Amino acid sequence: MAETTAEIVSVGTELLLGQIVDTHAPTMARLLAECGIACMRRQTVGDNMERVVQAITEALSRADVVITVGGLGPTQDDLTRPAIAQALGDKLVREPEVEEKLRQFFAERKVAWVESNANQADRPESATLIDNPNGSAPGLLCQKNGKVVIALPGPKGEFNPMANGPVRTFLSQMSGGQVIHSRILRVCGIGESAVEAAIQHLMQAANPSVAPYAKTGEVHLRVTARAATVHIADALLDPVEQSIRDVLGNAVYGTNETTLEEAVLAEFRQRGATVAVAESMTGGWLGQRFTSVPGSSDVFLGGVISYSIGAKKSLLGVSEATLELFGAVSEECASEMALGVQERMGSTYAVSITGNAGPTAEGGKPVGLAYIGIAGPGGCEVREIQYRGIRDDIRLRMTQAALVSLRSAVLRS
Amino acid sequence: MAETTAEIVSVGTELLLGQIVDTHAPTMARLLAECGIACMRRQTVGDNMERVVQAITEALSRADVVITVGGLGPTQDDLTRPAIAQALGDKLVREPEVEEKLRQFFAERKVAWVESNANQADRPESATLIDNPNGSAPGLLCQKNGKVVIALPGPKGEFNPMANGPVRTFLSQMSGGQVIHSRILRVCGIGESAVEAAIQHLMQAANPSVAPYAKTGEVHLRVTARAATVHIADALLDPVEQSIRDVLGNAVYGTNETTLEEAVLAEFRQRGATVAVAESMTGGWLGQRFTSVPGSSDVFLGGVISYSIGAKKSLLGVSEATLELFGAVSEECASEMALGVQERMGSTYAVSITGNAGPTAEGGKPVGLAYIGIAGPGGCEVREIQYRGIRDDIRLRMTQAALVSLRSAVLRS
Repeated sequence: MAETTAEIVSVGTELLLGQIVDTHAPTMARLLAECGIACMRRQTVGDNMERVVQAITEALSRADVVITVGGLGPTQDDLTRPAIAQALGDKLVREPEVEEKLRQFFAERKVAWVESNANQADRPESATLIDNPNGSAPGLLCQKNGKVVIALPGPKGEFNPMANGPVRTFLSQMSGGQVIHSRILRVCGIGESAVEAAIQHLMQAANPSVAPYAKTGEVHLRVTARAATVHIADALLDPVEQSIRDVLGNAVYGTNETTLEEAVLAEFRQRGATVAVAESMTGGWLGQRFTSVPGSSDVFLGGVISYSIGAKKSLLGVSEATLELFGAVSEECASEMALGVQERMGSTYAVSITGNAGPTAEGGKPVGLAYIGIAGPGGCEVREIQYRGIRDDIRLRMTQAALVSLRSAVLRS
Repeated sequence: MAETTAEIVSVGTELLLGQIVDTHAPTMARLLAECGIACMRRQTVGDNMERVVQAITEALSRADVVITVGGLGPTQDDLTRPAIAQALGDKLVREPEVEEKLRQFFAERKVAWVESNANQADRPESATLIDNPNGSAPGLLCQKNGKVVIALPGPKGEFNPMANGPVRTFLSQMSGGQVIHSRILRVCGIGESAVEAAIQHLMQAANPSVAPYAKTGEVHLRVTARAATVHIADALLDPVEQSIRDVLGNAVYGTNETTLEEAVLAEFRQRGATVAVAESMTGGWLGQRFTSVPGSSDVFLGGVISYSIGAKKSLLGVSEATLELFGAVSEECASEMALGVQERMGSTYAVSITGNAGPTAEGGKPVGLAYIGIAGPGGCEVREIQYRGIRDDIRLRMTQAALVSLRSAVLRS
């Protein structure tokens, strides 16, 4: 059977002119891949009837499935519904039941009814409606002459549930039940090329395939299997995951959506350990990452943002002598910062970050030079790091390096 | 003269499949608008010769200018250069000088030379080269049969300078010298509908036009003028900016790229004042925002991440009685946190944030309930806030509200 192909048409002048960035098209492209359908092209057009019709018509001439995003609302800018009808040579028909629901929807929200709202109850003759539990406009699923057109609304809270629900089910069935199912293994503490070298032998295979992606301070390995069901695909992924773990050991910190901060918090939680931070160059960013995880308060106690010399002295007890002899960007200062916050907070572990984030070298310390201190039950270790890049890039990578060091310390405990 | 039209073709399988989000196409679309050129369509295709040629050919059949992004590198996946040549009916010719530069570029970086690198020295016959000071691959500017094709590389550090430098100059001249020039006025402390109501009379005009955009905790007003030169456009924008400032007063905190944290730091700097933070629910996020601004250390001294009860007591001196009687999410606790960090840091001002970021209500405090304390030379004021939303959305909006409160306090001083 020939591969099923698809194209995506995003509709909206704000999108076209770059006033907002299109994240739905990438979402839909990934979803198509997961359903075993090949996405061949994406287009973006403005709210102009002639050009929307042209884009859909062209896409229909090349692909089996055309997915439109946006332009289903009630205003005169919303043209996708009649444009699809025109491209398919369909008439628009009104669904009285949908109109009734729309009237109720507005009445319940005490929003005044304007007649153009009823346009959302229209559908091309060959369309069935896709229920939209989170908004007013239903989606469309048109099947005609062996082609499929699916229309989804633009608002995120409406688009995502419809795409991942009924549309995913339909597309999976359409591609002959073949699914493409991925699992991401998240790796920290090893660079991309070293990861690639270590798993070279696994990257030759086609099913499951293994592809590395470099992220800020970590590497993601996407392992992808094609199979008849997600269950069978999972069974294909398991041994490959195991092979990767055999080679990379506990550099694999998590799978799929697990973040490094979540993984670190979990390791601490398992051991009943707590952690505090003393942040200079990162100014609270590491604390912000810990506290972005719901329920982090059993492990993360807080800490100090010691951005000024005064804060290092008064809030952390860093000694005058250290600051004078070695400076704030030094191994000695990092060590005293970590030990200082550990003592004051009574935490099992503490991590300190001090360095020069730029834009200029200061006191003989180049931009990107930084120290991470890890205080644990057995004392304090300091790591020197030299990064290149712009300010916030260096700072983010420092929070990442701190999490990696902290994880490594707790795993050794 | 008929309006000059353009289309953008983004090239790359990773883009097409949604593994990365395309931010260059929106950037280029905005740049086109600013140069007075109408962007009519955007397309994304994968690294496939036939489809790249087809997309460029179609775009050339409709638009005066076609801009491609990506696919200029040295590997076999990089097809844009030969694809443009094919679409234009050009031969590829090699530039010996560029090849020589490439060889030097690699030698200086001690990277081994592979022969495919020399492909980057090729150009379609009708192309001149666009210098790329930040990478190896030059861009292309092809002019043939009254059409223009511009090819830019994908890496951000190479794309942005080329787009905003030589390409912007060329496109402005091309559109007959008409420029579209915008200025953004950034407004905080007032909701979008109140802003709209206040400037309703200015939103009727066509040149300059005024359009509001709601952002997280602030509103951006884009004022846009069309004129023969940027200088004349600026002169048109000035009185509109003044009218907006007359109505909104110091709710306008900055223009263009100025962030709220930058604006707040500048107000403090002007007054020789300093600030410290005591962050509970935001866990260091506010400190992270302050320290993202280079040179913030003369104003921002640091502070405390008082995520745990212990930290509130030991690092800020919040009293046992307050925590027992009113809890950590209370006006009283916010006040003691702000005063505590102000005293310990010796800062002119201090700001505290305590609240419940979710996911569940705790101790009778609903998700989204929070308090912001502002300690200044004259004592401490606390503001109660109730937001709805998901965890990190609430937390970000709290840092925004804290900056707005802080700014308002220092402006009153």
